[in-house]
Amino acid sequence: MMEKTQRITPRTLKGFRDYLPETMIPRERLTEIAQQVYRSYGFAPIDTPALEYYEILAGKGGDETDKQLYQFEDHGGRRVGLRFDLTVPFARFSAQYINQIGTPFKRYHIGKVWRGENTQAGRYREFMQCDFDTIGTESIVSDIETTLVIHDLLNSIGFEGKYTIRINNRLVLSGLLDKLGLLAKTVPILRALDKLPKIGREKVAEEMIQSADATCQQADAVLQLAELKGTSDEILKSLATMVSGNEAGEEGVEKLGTVIKNVQAAGVPEKTVQIDVSIARGLDYYTGMIYETFLHELPGIGSVCSGGRYDNLASLYTKQQLPGVGASLGLDRLLAAMEELGKIEKISTPADIFIPFFVANRLGDYLKLAVNLRRAGFKVEVYPEAKKLGQQLKYADKRGFAYTVVIGEDEFEQNTCQIKNMKTGETVNCPMTEIALQI
Amino acid sequence: MMEKTQRITPRTLKGFRDYLPETMIPRERLTEIAQQVYRSYGFAPIDTPALEYYEILAGKGGDETDKQLYQFEDHGGRRVGLRFDLTVPFARFSAQYINQIGTPFKRYHIGKVWRGENTQAGRYREFMQCDFDTIGTESIVSDIETTLVIHDLLNSIGFEGKYTIRINNRLVLSGLLDKLGLLAKTVPILRALDKLPKIGREKVAEEMIQSADATCQQADAVLQLAELKGTSDEILKSLATMVSGNEAGEEGVEKLGTVIKNVQAAGVPEKTVQIDVSIARGLDYYTGMIYETFLHELPGIGSVCSGGRYDNLASLYTKQQLPGVGASLGLDRLLAAMEELGKIEKISTPADIFIPFFVANRLGDYLKLAVNLRRAGFKVEVYPEAKKLGQQLKYADKRGFAYTVVIGEDEFEQNTCQIKNMKTGETVNCPMTEIALQI
Repeated sequence: MMEKTQRITPRTLKGFRDYLPETMIPRERLTEIAQQVYRSYGFAPIDTPALEYYEILAGKGGDETDKQLYQFEDHGGRRVGLRFDLTVPFARFSAQYINQIGTPFKRYHIGKVWRGENTQAGRYREFMQCDFDTIGTESIVSDIETTLVIHDLLNSIGFEGKYTIRINNRLVLSGLLDKLGLLAKTVPILRALDKLPKIGREKVAEEMIQSADATCQQADAVLQLAELKGTSDEILKSLATMVSGNEAGEEGVEKLGTVIKNVQAAGVPEKTVQIDVSIARGLDYYTGMIYETFLHELPGIGSVCSGGRYDNLASLYTKQQLPGVGASLGLDRLLAAMEELGKIEKISTPADIFIPFFVANRLGDYLKLAVNLRRAGFKVEVYPEAKKLGQQLKYADKRGFAYTVVIGEDEFEQNTCQIKNMKTGETVNCPMTEIALQI
Repeated sequence: MMEKTQRITPRTLKGFRDYLPETMIPRERLTEIAQQVYRSYGFAPIDTPALEYYEILAGKGGDETDKQLYQFEDHGGRRVGLRFDLTVPFARFSAQYINQIGTPFKRYHIGKVWRGENTQAGRYREFMQCDFDTIGTESIVSDIETTLVIHDLLNSIGFEGKYTIRINNRLVLSGLLDKLGLLAKTVPILRALDKLPKIGREKVAEEMIQSADATCQQADAVLQLAELKGTSDEILKSLATMVSGNEAGEEGVEKLGTVIKNVQAAGVPEKTVQIDVSIARGLDYYTGMIYETFLHELPGIGSVCSGGRYDNLASLYTKQQLPGVGASLGLDRLLAAMEELGKIEKISTPADIFIPFFVANRLGDYLKLAVNLRRAGFKVEVYPEAKKLGQQLKYADKRGFAYTVVIGEDEFEQNTCQIKNMKTGETVNCPMTEIALQI
């Protein structure tokens, strides 16, 4: 027989985490910034179910993803799975509704995804994705806009002047490989090139020679392209020379130039967007522009906002061609970065003002004051118990309120209050009607 | 052999739905209002994983809920389930962290939950919950505040003057039942009483007599209590007489009086909060105050914001006593109601201003104008392709933009533009620098 008092140990699953207020407040702030920026460009929100038919999800992210898929049989005997990204559901969504919605279609989607990965430091089995995409158009305007959105995101989050958006166009390298007669070897070449920052020039060249049958000269030409340094104008000039005569290559260089020119015209500082022909982002998916974003203070954490242009989003589900371009803000990575950089205050209340409650028969007056302050736009918490002031101030301090407004019986009679700045410890006395002016 | 062109039918699981922009925009608006109101009272956000150990979830919501639980074995052989509400995870969360967080603890939690229910009209297997709770205090201040939060939520959503918050205190009925010697029959009495609006007075009395061994007089006394009508003062007086001499009953009446008095002092109109001793909200969980909220225009859809006070949130997971009070905003129900009442505009863009792009070599100028308007606080979409104006205006109309700002080569040269109000069709010509003043 079970005893009534038998308790279950409260715990979360391995690889999963709870968000306490001091982590959830900055996470909500980041998602709100993302929403505001996306909306300011006309991206509209959508949502899709966490659960999808297994066949919708299976085989879309490669073998590794299939293995990590949370899948099971539901009550109706259907094989179902938890989405592992927001791209596959968006492809399914687009195929299903595009005739109703019409193109171009600009959407953002912020939501949780699940992957049964081996848990390592900072890797979770549940995490948020924060994607924006424009589909149904091949226009370069959307590639330019993608860059502008990334710029606005990072600036709004507080990294103005402290990040670089690296851009590339897949056609440039394809053009060069075509010229070199290596187009059929694109995959092994890209695979080798991807390792450049880690293993260095010589080893990459060796790998190209071995796995892609490249000659020394060919490997050298590819590496020269990838290693180009200088201003955007200088790089564009060199690239133009290198791919000259190859149609795809020339188109790629022209597109890079158009993006650079227009984002600068729109006010993005020259240094913020840099051409980097070495970035490839996976091997198959992206076909045109590619974006990566690095924080100057923490380059090692990798790109915090990445994306690119693809030829056809939903070919698995529809005959309709849906080319598009988009990127994804790495919310969790950014949060971790901001924590590491000391950009996150340890605050566990969303409210600005704390009102201790210690004249018990004045409850209505405390509540009314709080209502008035809320109307003036403040976020206000009234302590629920008429305890000693010291205890209540300790609570306020622990939570991290910016201000405490202390009102005792004398203050009520004189219609005044004492405002305490909880960071500096300074106090100011003022009429109750002037609190909004003092804070 | 599989053909490459074999396509998968894009579809969602039965009981699940996608949110297209025109539904997602109002849903995001509602969750933002809820967040703002919760924060304005000092409720802090938390989040918990969608997946929990099965043992955490099982047996917490009754047999029906257990049957509806999405459960399976994960990659590590753990039995896991998708959360079916936000209360059980909050109980687990509280037991786990309360010593670290401290009390009183005020949290809100907005997130998806899953139940494998039989799908009926308007019932989904995935839906959002939107809860707020104060735990770790028995103070009536938190019960008062719960009422104020519900009031602010409904006002902010746009129902000012068009809803009633019905409140009750479980102790009042307990007090009467105790006086009548029927306390041991509370469950069957409540079960019968719950049916009052549906089956009427006589049948409820019959059921009380049959299933709770009540006499005619006893059943009549209970029904008199439940059917009290009048102003709050009148009801409070009658209740006081009816439970007079019984401690619990008197406490319940006093608490109802304190809530009424203080929410009125805080500026809530008298008619908005009404005592209704017939509301019970389930049989076991709530122990003190109870809240339900009805829309005057759609009483039939049921309560759109409900909650109450409970004795001990987390007794299954910890010895620590965690009394609390809270409520849950019925987001999906409210959305459906607003749709039925024509309160939701059919708009599928979050942006205010549409800028057609039709002078191809002026792309940089269009983009720059959009940047400036965004800086001025507008949400602006630039069409990505230099198509015919008519086609672009059709797109703008379909999406539901409020304004279109038309600029051709002449306008660029004269630094002017034409602003078209898309609802009225009116157009205004003005200098480009004055768009913000005209919209």
